[in-house]
Order: sequence, then structure tokens, then C-alpha cells
Amino acid sequence: MPKKKELTKSSQWKVLESEYLIRRPWMTVRRESLRLPDGRIVPEYYVLEYPDWVNVIAITDDGMMILEKQYRHGIGCAAWEIPCGVLEKSDSSPLSGAQRELLEETGYGGGEWTLLDTLSGNPGSTNNRTYCFLAQGVKRIGEPNLDAGESFDVKLFPVETIPEMLLRGDFIQALHVAPLWKFLYLNKN
Amino acid sequence: MPKKKELTKSSQWKVLESEYLIRRPWMTVRRESLRLPDGRIVPEYYVLEYPDWVNVIAITDDGMMILEKQYRHGIGCAAWEIPCGVLEKSDSSPLSGAQRELLEETGYGGGEWTLLDTLSGNPGSTNNRTYCFLAQGVKRIGEPNLDAGESFDVKLFPVETIPEMLLRGDFIQALHVAPLWKFLYLNKN
Repeated sequence: MPKKKELTKSSQWKVLESEYLIRRPWMTVRRESLRLPDGRIVPEYYVLEYPDWVNVIAITDDGMMILEKQYRHGIGCAAWEIPCGVLEKSDSSPLSGAQRELLEETGYGGGEWTLLDTLSGNPGSTNNRTYCFLAQGVKRIGEPNLDAGESFDVKLFPVETIPEMLLRGDFIQALHVAPLWKFLYLNKN
Repeated sequence: MPKKKELTKSSQWKVLESEYLIRRPWMTVRRESLRLPDGRIVPEYYVLEYPDWVNVIAITDDGMMILEKQYRHGIGCAAWEIPCGVLEKSDSSPLSGAQRELLEETGYGGGEWTLLDTLSGNPGSTNNRTYCFLAQGVKRIGEPNLDAGESFDVKLFPVETIPEMLLRGDFIQALHVAPLWKFLYLNKN
């Protein structure tokens, strides 16, 4: 097998066949047959289709970060997370989706919002992006209003304790850990 | 709908039924019926089974980080990544799997290795963990030996240019971005 390093960044794979194996509200699996730029055929490649996701590092006026602890059945354990959710068709933008999720899950809103990063949990197999926001100076403006099936603890932590929580392994979701370390890096003196 | 905040960190969901819908080398999908701690039934919950994964921030003696640019068909674009792969049954540990992947993909090895983090790309839907290593002082000790189907550019970048690459969005894989920002945070003066 010769070394394969000639693929350039713009090379795309040609889709020869594509069929849905599962198309349910929480799971969509597509199987494709592909031709690579060197002519090789990959007869069986799986893509998981998801809506885009949003999450938010939300910090109150007095320097507290809003976190949620939630059991996650895929991995079978609970860990701390930043507020997050699925971008709905009714959201006018990733920003408005993230603001809706924060309000629904925690009752907090307002403040100054910026897009901190755009990431993928698995670009080889999934087709969606996650928009990670930073919201500074949020305030309690309502009551949480959880979706059926959502269930978790919400707690506020001083921002200066987040590095020790991360170092202790209190977070496991890479789509949350990445923007948290980025935020901390940018704000480290 | 009452607020649901009584779930404690140890609460697990009871699996009432479980069946495999897809069981292929690169895609395993399990559908489960679950009973939540409050008695509610979730009739249709999907879990994706994967082997554990490994990745490595590999830095040469002269301060260069080894990166790979690879087209990822799920998301349909190419971005920079750190060397990574699947933990094989023949690997005696995540560390030896990461060392094998680095050598196979880049020809580099040796140096001082530490486990930097353990993460999940999606703890709600996937059952695996990703072990993220830091390897400092690696050297070119052989030729790359890519698997069939692997194809990417390998290039070395000065460590001090990594923050600007991250800020520019040159990386998108959260399982790589998270340990990179953590490494940079820990080494920021």
C-alpha cells in the first residue's frame, strides 16, 4: 500500500450511493458508498445527521458561572456541563437559540453575548456544528421551563473555581470543555 | 409539567429493553426502552457504541507541534487535527495505543508522555471515552505506515503559533480543541 499524503485540503469524496437506515427524531443514520480522490471505493460509510447544537458559558454580574449536572445515558454517568441544547427550526439564529436554551434551563438571560467558538463533536461521522457562546452579566429573569425528559441540577460556581473543576475531571463533554479552557486561556493574566 | 430538579448525580436510568439496530465495523446503534427515576418511560433512546479513542499533542525537541490536515466526510470539510485514532484490542493501554497511532501516522515517537485529559464527544449518545495525551520531546524514529483509507497531510508548526490557529478556526474537532486549549492555559505565563 503506497503512502497517501497527496490529498489536498479541498479534496472531497464523491458520493455514489446514499440511503437512510434510521430516520427517527433523535437518530438519523445515512449509509453511503463513496469514491475517494485516488479512485478507491469505500462501500460502506456512515453519517449521523443532527440539527446544530448550541451551548453557553453564562456568567452572572457577580462572577458566578451557571452549570448543570446531568446524567448522560450514553456514557452512563453524570458530570457538570454548561447549559446547552438543540437549535430549533423556530430559532432565528444560533444566538437566539442559545438565549432560549439558557432561559428555559436556568431562568437566566440578558447580558452581553459573543460567539466564542464553532466546533464539531465528531467531524468524521456527524454533519452538525455546535455554536459556543459566552454570555457575561446575565441575570435571573424568569423561571426555568424544562422540556419533558430534561432533569438536572443547576448550580452557580465562582469563575475562579472552574480551572480546578476542569483539572479534577468534573466535566467530560468535549464540546463544553473546549470553550471553557479557551475562555480561561483568554482571561488568564 | 412540574419542575424536575430532584435527580441526583448517582441516578441511573433502568434499561427495560435493548436491541441492536446496526452492528457494523464502523457503526453500532442500540435502541433502548428506559425507565427514568421518576417512573417516566422513554420508549426509544439511541446509543452509539464505539471503541475508546486516543489522541496526542506531540511536540518535538525543538518546539514544533505535529498536526494533520484531513478531510472529514461527516461535516464535509478539512481542518487541522492532532494525531488520533481508535484504541485497538491489541493495545495494552490507552498510552500504548496513542504511541502506536503517532508512530503509524507520522513516524514520530519517544519523548515524555502524560495523560492530559479524558473526554467524550457526546456523553448522551455515545458510550466511549477519548484519552488525550501530551508527548513532549518526540523524535522522528521511522516512516509513517497508514491504514488503508487514511490519507492526510502531516506538518509541523511552532507551538507559539497554535493559539492564533485556534482563534482563526483552523481546528473544529472539540476532542482536539479541548486538550489544546488546556495545554496552552497550563503553559501560559
